[in-house]
Amino acid sequence: MSTPNPMDWQTANAAHRKSWVAAANDPISNFPIQNLPFGVFSDRRNVNPRVGVAIGDLILDLAVLAGNGLLTQSRDVFACSSLNRFIALGQAEWRAARLQISLLLDANSARLRDDAALREQALVAQADSRMHLPVDIPGYTDFYSSKEHATNVGSMFRDPKTALLPNWLEIPIGYNGRASSVIVSETPIRRPNGQIKLPESDRPVFGPCRKLDIELETGFIVGANTALGEPIACDQAEAHIFGMVLLNDWSARDIQQWEYVPLGPFNSKGFATTISPWIVTLDAFDPFRCAQPEQSPEPLPYLRHAGDHGFDIHLEVDLLGAGERAASTIARTNFRYMYWTMAQQLTHHTASGCNVRVGDLMGSGTISGPTADSCGSLLESTWNGQRPLTLPSGNNRTFLQDGDEVVLRGWCQGDGYRVGFGTCSGKVLAAPELA
Amino acid sequence: MSTPNPMDWQTANAAHRKSWVAAANDPISNFPIQNLPFGVFSDRRNVNPRVGVAIGDLILDLAVLAGNGLLTQSRDVFACSSLNRFIALGQAEWRAARLQISLLLDANSARLRDDAALREQALVAQADSRMHLPVDIPGYTDFYSSKEHATNVGSMFRDPKTALLPNWLEIPIGYNGRASSVIVSETPIRRPNGQIKLPESDRPVFGPCRKLDIELETGFIVGANTALGEPIACDQAEAHIFGMVLLNDWSARDIQQWEYVPLGPFNSKGFATTISPWIVTLDAFDPFRCAQPEQSPEPLPYLRHAGDHGFDIHLEVDLLGAGERAASTIARTNFRYMYWTMAQQLTHHTASGCNVRVGDLMGSGTISGPTADSCGSLLESTWNGQRPLTLPSGNNRTFLQDGDEVVLRGWCQGDGYRVGFGTCSGKVLAAPELA
Repeated sequence: MSTPNPMDWQTANAAHRKSWVAAANDPISNFPIQNLPFGVFSDRRNVNPRVGVAIGDLILDLAVLAGNGLLTQSRDVFACSSLNRFIALGQAEWRAARLQISLLLDANSARLRDDAALREQALVAQADSRMHLPVDIPGYTDFYSSKEHATNVGSMFRDPKTALLPNWLEIPIGYNGRASSVIVSETPIRRPNGQIKLPESDRPVFGPCRKLDIELETGFIVGANTALGEPIACDQAEAHIFGMVLLNDWSARDIQQWEYVPLGPFNSKGFATTISPWIVTLDAFDPFRCAQPEQSPEPLPYLRHAGDHGFDIHLEVDLLGAGERAASTIARTNFRYMYWTMAQQLTHHTASGCNVRVGDLMGSGTISGPTADSCGSLLESTWNGQRPLTLPSGNNRTFLQDGDEVVLRGWCQGDGYRVGFGTCSGKVLAAPELA
Repeated sequence: MSTPNPMDWQTANAAHRKSWVAAANDPISNFPIQNLPFGVFSDRRNVNPRVGVAIGDLILDLAVLAGNGLLTQSRDVFACSSLNRFIALGQAEWRAARLQISLLLDANSARLRDDAALREQALVAQADSRMHLPVDIPGYTDFYSSKEHATNVGSMFRDPKTALLPNWLEIPIGYNGRASSVIVSETPIRRPNGQIKLPESDRPVFGPCRKLDIELETGFIVGANTALGEPIACDQAEAHIFGMVLLNDWSARDIQQWEYVPLGPFNSKGFATTISPWIVTLDAFDPFRCAQPEQSPEPLPYLRHAGDHGFDIHLEVDLLGAGERAASTIARTNFRYMYWTMAQQLTHHTASGCNVRVGDLMGSGTISGPTADSCGSLLESTWNGQRPLTLPSGNNRTFLQDGDEVVLRGWCQGDGYRVGFGTCSGKVLAAPELA
């Protein structure tokens, strides 16, 4: 931009701002001018995936903007099928790009608003577009950082008196997941086959999962490479995070229960992990910071950070049962319940020397709240199938049936606007036939 | 090649064959004409990493060969910093390339032997070269497939009577490791800091690992992409394997013991995993096939395969203690002890729908044999530090000290020749200072 920016990234988040894209000013849109999440899309006009930003019901094509000299970043970082090259430019460039886009979309900015030809080129309806996995994911890690979730699971499978294992309050427990099977919202989910050990049999059977579940999570995308042996300090960690996604960590509970001792879940999680197509930057969530839950005992020094590292992100799960006419919201919870912060997760991940890479995905773990209707998994809300949920038709659900569709939503509620992810959905297909 | 091949890939493995590269005919060389392992190297003359094949004490530069029309594969697949493009060509092309190279290096083949100018271009001394990580590794999985190892660990940390968990004889147990920290042989190993819980303290401390260990493993490199939801049949699985490496899964036992319940090892393994620079093809190991151990109970149908899927690969660990004058061999074992085969591991990995990608690395798990001197980890051979090893100087070792160097070796013994990996080594450096 040749003109100096009249705002910084924080004032660009101001609640009063409007866009000339009308739908962006709808108070329940997830994509107002205060958000500007990044994703990768294609459409019939141009089938090549490229980087865009969601605004209202439209997508702004950043390759077109950069190609027309309206962004200071090179067109090359946007005219490609993943965000990795853009992310690798670093935080200063993420902020510069978001601010330039924010100015171009401002209700009072004429440059793009009044250039019909360029608008025609640069804006595509979300309804006419296909979204792609927004990043190449070199590594996927899943944490286990909701105290309510860990307590529920521990009570169910171990002992309610010692539900939380001794290490849980000291370590942001996590494990390496399978990056190859991370898929974008709307990709169908094939029910997995796997080894299942029934109590009445001596040996396991191999067949379709009978306890297919969801895990309501968010994930963050790592924004910078680190070198092997170089830990990230906790008070620097957020600067290494590009943004967040919704994440559904589909889980085969029966396969998991048989396989997970002693090395953790494997086939029970590796068949699919769905993320939202839009990555909301930490900058866009900044106005919605809040305190994380009190941590007791106080974390070891390497896990301490001053300030607020919680985010007040309302989260919910809708289930549209196979053959049902209406979806029901089966869970309402909030990211603010997370015990361990993203900064602590990333710091712990690198504390022993492990390197991270641009595009790494780190899941929060299932986010459950303090009440029965705030559980982020069916395992918890049905107490391992013992307390079925009632759907609007009167039918019951314990775990997922073929044809069921699950939609995750998440947003921050501002004064007259929402900053959100949009949706993260998937529909269950029948298991493959066995040979 | 314009002339028809007088051999197929199996007769190319014949024991009597010699190369005009003299060192390749040394009976203890790991790189005779029967081997021809692939790697990525650079040297002072050309600092760009490219694909080569080890022959005796030399490296044959495949980019030079292809550039001179001596290989049917495109130069592009060799003039690059990883083997992924070559591997992606598929098994027929791996075999075609290996056979063409074998013919060029044959003692009776004049084409390269008698072309001094081309030889000068195409051959580099291993001693003058630097080896690089041979593949870009999209995913790293580590199995736990040695019955002796699993029994030893179970006896130590659980109960000798129930050392083997109930799932172990049914599932080739594995977990997702951290691909970003896989490094090539000779890269120094920084002792990790981490959370350690001492029995006398209520809370963990954060500091240098006190129980730094090795795990003697092999790994295999996946040779073909699969689609999500498409399992690999067990009797087809070996065709999806490009080759094998030596692998040292460095392990921080004290960090591991505190962190691993319930989701498996994380920081205790994620700081470094070393692999050998040379990938030995399964074709080169073919003459050394043997029966895998008897599996009882008979595996579930999806894990069954006819024929011999064990390999008689002698494995050993040398330790050169800091300040010691001589190395000692602290373990001698064999890949043939592996209970679960590589084919079964890969089949199980994909059985629930997980996709795999070219370059994926899958570790065997620690390979221990039936005797005390065949343990693939110090944890086992010193029984968690209770029975120190004696070094040649008379000094003792339980776990690794700073300055210690560990060298893994592995080879098949033929009639007058060896087909091997060369070495996989690493030297321990002191832990980083805490901030």
